[in-house]
Amino acid sequence: MVCLMSLAKIRLYVDHPLGPGQSLPLEEGQAHYLFGVMREGQGARVLLFNGRDGEWLAEVTEAGKRKGVLACLEQTRPQTGLADLWLLFAPVKKARTDMIVEKAVELGAARLLPVATDYTNSERLRRDKAEAHVREAAEQCGALTLPEVADMAPLARLLSDWPAGRRILWADESAPPGGPLAPLGKAAPDPWAILIGPEGGFSQAERDRLRSLPFVTPVSLGPRILRAETAAIAALTLWQATLGDWR
Amino acid sequence: MVCLMSLAKIRLYVDHPLGPGQSLPLEEGQAHYLFGVMREGQGARVLLFNGRDGEWLAEVTEAGKRKGVLACLEQTRPQTGLADLWLLFAPVKKARTDMIVEKAVELGAARLLPVATDYTNSERLRRDKAEAHVREAAEQCGALTLPEVADMAPLARLLSDWPAGRRILWADESAPPGGPLAPLGKAAPDPWAILIGPEGGFSQAERDRLRSLPFVTPVSLGPRILRAETAAIAALTLWQATLGDWR
Repeated sequence: MVCLMSLAKIRLYVDHPLGPGQSLPLEEGQAHYLFGVMREGQGARVLLFNGRDGEWLAEVTEAGKRKGVLACLEQTRPQTGLADLWLLFAPVKKARTDMIVEKAVELGAARLLPVATDYTNSERLRRDKAEAHVREAAEQCGALTLPEVADMAPLARLLSDWPAGRRILWADESAPPGGPLAPLGKAAPDPWAILIGPEGGFSQAERDRLRSLPFVTPVSLGPRILRAETAAIAALTLWQATLGDWR
Repeated sequence: MVCLMSLAKIRLYVDHPLGPGQSLPLEEGQAHYLFGVMREGQGARVLLFNGRDGEWLAEVTEAGKRKGVLACLEQTRPQTGLADLWLLFAPVKKARTDMIVEKAVELGAARLLPVATDYTNSERLRRDKAEAHVREAAEQCGALTLPEVADMAPLARLLSDWPAGRRILWADESAPPGGPLAPLGKAAPDPWAILIGPEGGFSQAERDRLRSLPFVTPVSLGPRILRAETAAIAALTLWQATLGDWR
């Protein structure tokens, strides 16, 4: 990945078609970042992606105070998709929730679903802020696709309407320790979802419900108590290494 | 783990023997935290550990403004050790370095070694601050042992003096993707070390050196560029799940 980034230091997500000879306007915020903050100007090279047309090396052809125009030079990577993995997580304190979002992008989750559980500490998650974090993390980590952010929903309702054929890997603090890889090693690759609870864990009623569902696979993440964001990163890592795009 | 924490909400590391009938003074900072911040008083119950005598339920027998006395009631868990796993990491920005330290404790590393590499962004790491983070993280995650924090050392020197018999799992951004679990699946459990680079990765000279060493196993952590703390958590997770105390 290092070699690709060396073509251009700055990598931007744009919501515009990319292709040979394509030129496109910069958003005001990106123009400010590129010309005001990063001190780039005409002739500067950046990498662009839009989630559909792969990654392109582009050149600044016009640089204004809060506007600019880019021209695509050549495709640096073809478009690829993400593994069909969702992350269901209970929002925690702001900085740690931001981290869950950032890490989910780095680790290739395709959809982020904030869930309200019995012990959820935070009642809401601002979807627009989460989407801005997703975009920033994707620009940083070289992802070609932005994961989707869903509106916050109660866990009970998500489980009632759960789509057929999608399995849940449940980071279960009460699971007996041992062998987090064993249940994944024999499983089909996707679709899957990972479920991470809030700092207080899941209530007894939630644990009973989860244990009764045939599509839920509990997994122990070791003998220590992991914070929510650590559990999210660990579970995403195990899934990607056994069933996802790290294989 | 949840059941143990419900005996007492507060868990403290103390540098004092713990045993049946043992009483011990509280440090000034801990007395302030317990009585001033948490509003606890005489009769309050806390969990104690010292890295040697397991975990003990204790009761506050004297509560003063900045002092106090605890008495051990009963052992809640016997002492266990950590897997013999070191984490070598290049300090990055402060908040992210703090996170590496916190997560290394949660994920059961036994020794943290800050390393200076060719592209290390930060020249030093305050060992006393790192040790305070280690203590706080261990109190929070239920660990029974504090990992040791080493003084910062140049990577080249560490590699020259590398102890015989200890292997290194190297998070290598330039490794071809695929199969991070394969090299671990066939390996002996420990001693091991994980090596994580700074945000800029390793220099060509460092990569050549690492590739030439027979005790170094490069591993790819997927197709995206992981931040240093994400790579540390992911590598610790993979090691613990295949060779460590999550098995």
